[in-house]
Amino acid sequence: MVKSLAVERAGSSAIRDLLEITERPGIVSLAGGLPNPATFPTEALARASAAAIAEDPLAALQYGPTEGYRPLRRWVAERHGLGAHGTEGEERVLVTSGSQQALELLTRALVDPGGQVALADPAYVGALQAFRAAGVELAAIPADADGLCVDVLADRLARGERPALVYVVANFDNPSGSTLSAERRAALAELADRYGFWIVDDDPYGELRWKGEAPVALRELTDRTITLGSTSKVLAPGLRVGWAVAPVEVRRAMTILKQSADLHTSALTQQVVHRTMAEPGFLDAHLATLRTTYQHQAQHLVGALRDQVGDRLAVVEPDGGMFLWAELLDPTADTAALLAPAVEAGVAFVPGAAFGVERLHPTRMRLSYATADAAGLDLSVARLAGVLTGP
Amino acid sequence: MVKSLAVERAGSSAIRDLLEITERPGIVSLAGGLPNPATFPTEALARASAAAIAEDPLAALQYGPTEGYRPLRRWVAERHGLGAHGTEGEERVLVTSGSQQALELLTRALVDPGGQVALADPAYVGALQAFRAAGVELAAIPADADGLCVDVLADRLARGERPALVYVVANFDNPSGSTLSAERRAALAELADRYGFWIVDDDPYGELRWKGEAPVALRELTDRTITLGSTSKVLAPGLRVGWAVAPVEVRRAMTILKQSADLHTSALTQQVVHRTMAEPGFLDAHLATLRTTYQHQAQHLVGALRDQVGDRLAVVEPDGGMFLWAELLDPTADTAALLAPAVEAGVAFVPGAAFGVERLHPTRMRLSYATADAAGLDLSVARLAGVLTGP
Repeated sequence: MVKSLAVERAGSSAIRDLLEITERPGIVSLAGGLPNPATFPTEALARASAAAIAEDPLAALQYGPTEGYRPLRRWVAERHGLGAHGTEGEERVLVTSGSQQALELLTRALVDPGGQVALADPAYVGALQAFRAAGVELAAIPADADGLCVDVLADRLARGERPALVYVVANFDNPSGSTLSAERRAALAELADRYGFWIVDDDPYGELRWKGEAPVALRELTDRTITLGSTSKVLAPGLRVGWAVAPVEVRRAMTILKQSADLHTSALTQQVVHRTMAEPGFLDAHLATLRTTYQHQAQHLVGALRDQVGDRLAVVEPDGGMFLWAELLDPTADTAALLAPAVEAGVAFVPGAAFGVERLHPTRMRLSYATADAAGLDLSVARLAGVLTGP
Repeated sequence: MVKSLAVERAGSSAIRDLLEITERPGIVSLAGGLPNPATFPTEALARASAAAIAEDPLAALQYGPTEGYRPLRRWVAERHGLGAHGTEGEERVLVTSGSQQALELLTRALVDPGGQVALADPAYVGALQAFRAAGVELAAIPADADGLCVDVLADRLARGERPALVYVVANFDNPSGSTLSAERRAALAELADRYGFWIVDDDPYGELRWKGEAPVALRELTDRTITLGSTSKVLAPGLRVGWAVAPVEVRRAMTILKQSADLHTSALTQQVVHRTMAEPGFLDAHLATLRTTYQHQAQHLVGALRDQVGDRLAVVEPDGGMFLWAELLDPTADTAALLAPAVEAGVAFVPGAAFGVERLHPTRMRLSYATADAAGLDLSVARLAGVLTGP
């Protein structure tokens, strides 16, 4: 009975129902992109929230500007290398209710229904949902270990396709874990300038690099970049504070839509984030802890998988981020069909099909090493081994 | 350059730009719907936030369910008289990032672009923005001191119009301050059942009644009601926690759209709200304080206006809510043209035109007695008197 166009477009996900089951007690989940809760800086956050309300109740509790709390916008601008731009740097920042909201707002601001969005296949489920709910056409571009195949995009542009935006997770992609190479970044930026599309660089994982150097950021290569950031992976996702850093005209258009979407992001959580992040020394120390934690968890999961199912499952050891895009070596395998028995055995993953734009990625599964500790990871691999061996 | 359909639809507001000026220092604003910050229960909120993080960091800081924190949903269900329905009561509740978000989600869930929404003219600006951004057609229905003229709606239905939903602020309407009469509620519910439209009862002010009895709630009269609630006027707007109470199928459709809109509402602010609201004795005592405060402020503003500009401006003393829908007695007056000189004189209001669906309401202005204290209200009236007298 309740079936609007928007619900119909957004609602087609049998996998969502299955994944709800993975939250049952007793299941060790490698499925979610949930940070390890042991990393939450609870003392700093509790202190910041109580102080924000006690010291500046107007800023923490009254209605605030749709654009976000100005000192937080300034902090974000500085963190993105816009400090030298003065207040123009802040003007590029919109604080959002998680970067998921930024993604939905910019889709509606930049792409009319029927317009085209190009993105890697596989792609982040939340992005797919936001794009599908907005009724845009998706152009699936293949991707490999160096990220989006920009040469394929270039061919399609040359043949006349005109995406309004190109979506990438350039650092430690979700689900593939790949990082877009420096060469491809330069090529993508050049195409954006030539053809006039926007690049959306969704970057929740960039700070979680423990090895190697990050390639130059896309926003350094072209002004046609919108960078999305989030506190979900570096502080705590329950705060729901993210941001977009965009050309001022794009930020303005997004602000108009945000006003009718939710007026503004919680003033209290913005205060908590700003007070915590801006505390001298906090962030560097906290990021160092996060990187060490996730590096250890990643190495632990990769080691256990290679030990126990290395003959059936290939994984690449990551330099950062949260995910392994594991591949079953049996080319006839179907990870979507394996999920139900895995859940039965007490372990969960996300089958490749969940991330499919046009393809189903049946031999792939996304495994997150972020949530569970070493004991949990061991248990999950033991259970997974039982399922992969079969009855 | 950035001009999608959605931005174009939502963006046409010269008044928004003018109202931004009203936030300049030195201006006493009767324009905003901002609660008096002296009423914020800062100690209870500071205690709740610190305790939530310290005692249950998983619930306060990790990703949470899109539907909202279950104990908060249960509390909302009980508060709406659904306690006897057990978990089915909770299943009707969606926690949202303010009731503004609920409004936008349900519009997209229940009305396709080009579909029709009927509402009173004048109407709440935020609702107009959400409806316009969604590209729906608006059917403006006249309203009077008893709220929406349901007989006019009935005529239009009989003549074949088929709104997908009818939007009302049944208790202490924004901007008109009117309360929909019991007779009209019964008639509206009967029409909803007969013609199959949804009633959206946006109810942020219902708890702020200091005189008289509330007519029966629309949700008691028909299952085709979606009630929107908010903590903005009873706790603090900066939390951005609201909810929809809806038939389960509607709640489900809204949940699907909320997932791509922002995943879920801040877990921390939901914890803060639940811990504060559910504390035995807190809410009744706090509501009593709020009612007394706003009653005094309302009486103060009405008294000062009648004393100083009573020969030019008519106001009705309210039984609750936050607004006076003041009327200039000069039938050629234009409140939109008066705003600039008023701001110059250091006082702000919202001209009737801001709330217009089809009509401009040129003799009307919305005055809020909620934000300023008695001294501020006196000052605002003195300044307003100067503007109304003219140079």
